[in-house]
Amino acid sequence: MSEELSKSELRHDPIQKRWVIIAATRSGRPDNFSMASEELTDDAECPFCDGNESQTPPEIIAVRENGGANEPGWSVRVVPNKFPALRIEGTVQRRGIGIYDRISGIGAHEVVIESPEHDTPFDGLAPENATLLYRVLQERLVDLMRDERFKYVILFKNKGGPAGATLKHPHHQVIATPITPKTVAMELVAAREHFRDKERCIFCDIIEQEIQSGERIVEITDRFVAFTPYASRSPYEIFVGPRYHEHSMTETTEDDLAGLADIMQRVLRRLRLALNDPPYNYVIHNAPNTSVKPKRASYWSTIVHDFHWHIEILPRTTRVAGFEWGTGFYINPKPPEEAAEQLRSVDEGD
Amino acid sequence: MSEELSKSELRHDPIQKRWVIIAATRSGRPDNFSMASEELTDDAECPFCDGNESQTPPEIIAVRENGGANEPGWSVRVVPNKFPALRIEGTVQRRGIGIYDRISGIGAHEVVIESPEHDTPFDGLAPENATLLYRVLQERLVDLMRDERFKYVILFKNKGGPAGATLKHPHHQVIATPITPKTVAMELVAAREHFRDKERCIFCDIIEQEIQSGERIVEITDRFVAFTPYASRSPYEIFVGPRYHEHSMTETTEDDLAGLADIMQRVLRRLRLALNDPPYNYVIHNAPNTSVKPKRASYWSTIVHDFHWHIEILPRTTRVAGFEWGTGFYINPKPPEEAAEQLRSVDEGD
Repeated sequence: MSEELSKSELRHDPIQKRWVIIAATRSGRPDNFSMASEELTDDAECPFCDGNESQTPPEIIAVRENGGANEPGWSVRVVPNKFPALRIEGTVQRRGIGIYDRISGIGAHEVVIESPEHDTPFDGLAPENATLLYRVLQERLVDLMRDERFKYVILFKNKGGPAGATLKHPHHQVIATPITPKTVAMELVAAREHFRDKERCIFCDIIEQEIQSGERIVEITDRFVAFTPYASRSPYEIFVGPRYHEHSMTETTEDDLAGLADIMQRVLRRLRLALNDPPYNYVIHNAPNTSVKPKRASYWSTIVHDFHWHIEILPRTTRVAGFEWGTGFYINPKPPEEAAEQLRSVDEGD
Repeated sequence: MSEELSKSELRHDPIQKRWVIIAATRSGRPDNFSMASEELTDDAECPFCDGNESQTPPEIIAVRENGGANEPGWSVRVVPNKFPALRIEGTVQRRGIGIYDRISGIGAHEVVIESPEHDTPFDGLAPENATLLYRVLQERLVDLMRDERFKYVILFKNKGGPAGATLKHPHHQVIATPITPKTVAMELVAAREHFRDKERCIFCDIIEQEIQSGERIVEITDRFVAFTPYASRSPYEIFVGPRYHEHSMTETTEDDLAGLADIMQRVLRRLRLALNDPPYNYVIHNAPNTSVKPKRASYWSTIVHDFHWHIEILPRTTRVAGFEWGTGFYINPKPPEEAAEQLRSVDEGD
């Protein structure tokens, strides 16, 4: 293995037009290549708990009441991922190898620890602490987008072993990459084409139709809406987004971050109660980095304003994902209208 | 729930341009919505075993030495899926609902039982029986494509609970649909664009480059090749395809079906030994149905001849798939060069 590859790289699939991170450095991560039952670290040895700050790499930022860097006293703490998929130092080099393409594995991979408490689910946080979490995620987004090497910043959460989490303590992750992921690129194209045809945002149109119909709504507030998508890929998939047009969470006001935290707490509480605390993944879909100078911008960075940021929650309730994952062809045994009804009825009788 | 939906339907995602089967009929299937540990049916009660033929719906076809329909004495047996995702009777009706699209859930969903033996892995079959299996799959492909309602036929195998199998007895599945799955549609476009630019097949070019380089080859024969793709999505992903140009397995000769069975047995044996019998999915990617009359053909059916059929094998070795599945953004901790080397070295010392 070349020295370069030992540090990870991005490779392009010429048929699916998809970038993949080949991250040999992550092989050292516990539990790789095993389907063994969940072995998430317990409380005593958890590196994300209060008092165990020395077990993580030095913090990037933290919101704290008291104490100094890497000491207890914080509310939200951001640290580098101990097994990063990409490395922060270096220049982005692009090279063709015959029909293939590669880019050096430059990027950022951070962990956002939601609170010092090991067992408090996100929906159990005080509302101001939930808001604080999204503010910190927004700050990381804005800060990483100052770096012109990074064309995209992914914010996501894996909860539970079957969803890919290796630590139980609630946390989000942040990955900054020199490319725009394909799923987002396709959303950008769909939004651009719809706007070109109709001069309307496709997401605004979908949200409007969902509110009119009502049958798939899970939660709705004056500024946000959560619904199970019409063509849900899997049972209990949920879309959460602003009812107003905004292309990126970099633009979201403090008031709306509080509104986002509120609806996310409501939605995730319904999910936890309806499905007995299921594993899930959620991904915040934002527009690509718009602060890249035009001559360095990728095509995707030039068509961002038709986009509408949103969150996609995918509970991991079935084991049938393998086939769907391999084909892009989804079979969902739970009609989203039924899933929404079930989620809406959770609080009755509580 | 409307009567129509109770029979399943296909729905279109207007942003990802993806069709999803909403199959309420499959909710009755054992083990749905549970992440419980693997509970695959054991030998005694297996409906796919010799002597238990009455436990499946009546067979569609079987290759048999002796006995009548639905009796013992068969080598390969094809039956309808007991919990079908699509129904065979009815006309394909298409309808718009505001911004959304739906198609009635017409299609076929069959199970191909590889042999009467419960515990014999595919690579343990006699070579002529392995060939017979692919001949039966080809026959189902040809037969289902006589039906103009079906634009595409997916042939695939789920092995092991984590890969979505609910029965342990080795089997393949066949799904015929009124649409072309998005992953295949994207491959068709990539093949068409490459051919338009260069008058060469993109798959032939990739295969040629892989053979020249050699570093990712797992198996190679005079007519077939197996390699770990340059931009592998996950550890030990394997591409298997003909070295000669052919757009669909409907065209494969008897000799080449034997060659396919041979390389698949070799590859799956290496995988089984190298990774301790891992769960996996594999999907045979063929061109869409070309026998549909031009005025009824979808766009995808008109650009099939630049395609090159192949098999994609995805071992389920890591638990991190959830995030990747949700974003289309893959992090693979095992460089495909290392995976190929490990698979190549399996037989040494045996």
